[in-house]
Amino acid sequence: MKVKEKKIIKKKLEEIGKSVVEQAKNHKVPYLRIPSRTTNNIVFDPKSLCYVIGNKTIMRSAGNIRHVKPMAQMLKVASFCKDLVEEELKHETKRGLYYISESWGEKLKFDEQPESDNIIEDIEAMIGEPRENFHIIPNPGGAVYGDLTLKFKNPSGKMMKINCLQTADGQTIGPRMSEAEIVECNAKRVIAIETSGMYNRFMEENAHKKFNAILVNLEGQATRATRRLIKRLNEIKKLPVYIFTDGDPWGLHIAMVIMAGSAKSAHINKMLATPSAKWIGVTATDIKKYKLRSDKLKDVDLKRIKELKKDPRYRSDKRLLEELKTWEEIKKKAEQQALLKYGLRYVVDEYFPAKLKEMEKK
Amino acid sequence: MKVKEKKIIKKKLEEIGKSVVEQAKNHKVPYLRIPSRTTNNIVFDPKSLCYVIGNKTIMRSAGNIRHVKPMAQMLKVASFCKDLVEEELKHETKRGLYYISESWGEKLKFDEQPESDNIIEDIEAMIGEPRENFHIIPNPGGAVYGDLTLKFKNPSGKMMKINCLQTADGQTIGPRMSEAEIVECNAKRVIAIETSGMYNRFMEENAHKKFNAILVNLEGQATRATRRLIKRLNEIKKLPVYIFTDGDPWGLHIAMVIMAGSAKSAHINKMLATPSAKWIGVTATDIKKYKLRSDKLKDVDLKRIKELKKDPRYRSDKRLLEELKTWEEIKKKAEQQALLKYGLRYVVDEYFPAKLKEMEKK
Repeated sequence: MKVKEKKIIKKKLEEIGKSVVEQAKNHKVPYLRIPSRTTNNIVFDPKSLCYVIGNKTIMRSAGNIRHVKPMAQMLKVASFCKDLVEEELKHETKRGLYYISESWGEKLKFDEQPESDNIIEDIEAMIGEPRENFHIIPNPGGAVYGDLTLKFKNPSGKMMKINCLQTADGQTIGPRMSEAEIVECNAKRVIAIETSGMYNRFMEENAHKKFNAILVNLEGQATRATRRLIKRLNEIKKLPVYIFTDGDPWGLHIAMVIMAGSAKSAHINKMLATPSAKWIGVTATDIKKYKLRSDKLKDVDLKRIKELKKDPRYRSDKRLLEELKTWEEIKKKAEQQALLKYGLRYVVDEYFPAKLKEMEKK
Repeated sequence: MKVKEKKIIKKKLEEIGKSVVEQAKNHKVPYLRIPSRTTNNIVFDPKSLCYVIGNKTIMRSAGNIRHVKPMAQMLKVASFCKDLVEEELKHETKRGLYYISESWGEKLKFDEQPESDNIIEDIEAMIGEPRENFHIIPNPGGAVYGDLTLKFKNPSGKMMKINCLQTADGQTIGPRMSEAEIVECNAKRVIAIETSGMYNRFMEENAHKKFNAILVNLEGQATRATRRLIKRLNEIKKLPVYIFTDGDPWGLHIAMVIMAGSAKSAHINKMLATPSAKWIGVTATDIKKYKLRSDKLKDVDLKRIKELKKDPRYRSDKRLLEELKTWEEIKKKAEQQALLKYGLRYVVDEYFPAKLKEMEKK
């Protein structure tokens, strides 16, 4: 994070406390106004193509005996996070924060982790920043490989530059990686891949050169850190993003969360989602076209397809709706590695170029 | 892998096919002799402190109609893997191999993945090499951070050297990382950590400098690639290994699998296990001593403890048996992050040095 950004975050966190102090000084009963994150304040925004938070707010007032404790806890958490931002090199997880609260005394400590998690999300919504920016970090996960040079302070605080080809199996995407400064990027696109097996295939077949791409290993559902890095490559370097998953509703939804975020994270989707990202496949149509070895869709898969068909994120995308219907017709799912029946190189030599051409026409 | 090792592996794979050809030439009905991997041939070896495979073998004979298909499949898989080793840069996963078999025609293709998995394990047992060595790779997972310089060919085949401090969040441990040549290692020990949160704490508190250590993020149960890297650091560089997990029977067993392998992998435990590795904690005793925030042990936890008490890997270790009993007494479990109640630095400044001293006395 740059010095300027750091100052802004610190100030936003301080403001929470300051407003309470101000009110008390003016002999008013202090309160905090927090954007409501309940379902009736989450709306689908057809412009940004993701769930966003509405205008409703809730009030937490020192005049309400039931509000006093969570209000004090929120101030304490904001203050703790301000210190983390100030120290610059220190980060903690949500679970770590929960345990740390034990040292805050009986009145402030959290009894259960959902309480502290909830306050962290409230702060995210209040200051409009993902928690990574106030150093409450998600687990690392996923990896990146390609001609991308990043600059960052490593965990020991040493400033360094790395190129993401300088690695045996990819660079882990954690809190420092996802926010690293992009010094140089010679790639023209990002290819995000669901499974480690297919990611390895792409690396070994030199897909990063062939497609002039940054390869990202999602390792299943993308972590926040990975989604953030993808978004930044898209936003800062204007790279189109292509997502390659297994051919089932779960794989498609992995792509959807990268594209449009989730309802639960409506208050920060703008910072995490990449609306222009495109799902390459394996589509239901591909299963037929490429005669892939497939399994029968189970009841739980079919139920999921029904849910997705009602979801506004899918209803605004004709192509995806069609694919959901095709699945219901063929009642089959296939894994991305099923393409290996045509040989190790086929997926990079034939399948992907054909799909890319198709997507770029649209 | 070095050229010499590569040649040996290739030869071992070739021998499988050659022996069949030889027998046929001599007008004998060809057969293959394969070490038996059934439970009655898995024994606990008190010397190496891990499960190993006994002397029983099974025979697969071309004279038995039920053996013909799996025998032919084994020859095909061995031949395919020989090609992978020859190509040097190509690796596939077990799942990938299953799908690849579709191109081998109706007579050779696998109907279900367990069939091909089984044949890969048979080959491991026959030639005494973990499948990584014949390029059937496990998923990557885990990460490493510390003053360790490794040399390897990256997925594009470019020879390179990296230092494992040259990274934002750690280097992913995948197939190339786990077998990389150790060029320089200035550390005196390895510290393997169960959770990403605590691993991050250790990196940020400069534990690698303080303890002169290589830090490894296990991300829960260690992957084979991670176990292999740990073993190699222990074997080649004589580094003692310390494992730091959550304070529950599951955490302890994460350590045990690193130390003694699993029964399922008895035929290759010698290549994966690090018998001299030591479990640091969080022990049951620590939960009492450090007054950690804890949860009640659930029925499933208590059941697990009972199982572990009967397991020969635990029965040969007085200290671990004592800890299992202590858990049964206190009926509580604690996560490693519970130590954060004493502040961010405590775990690295106080807890770990005390534990290390205790372990080094033993």
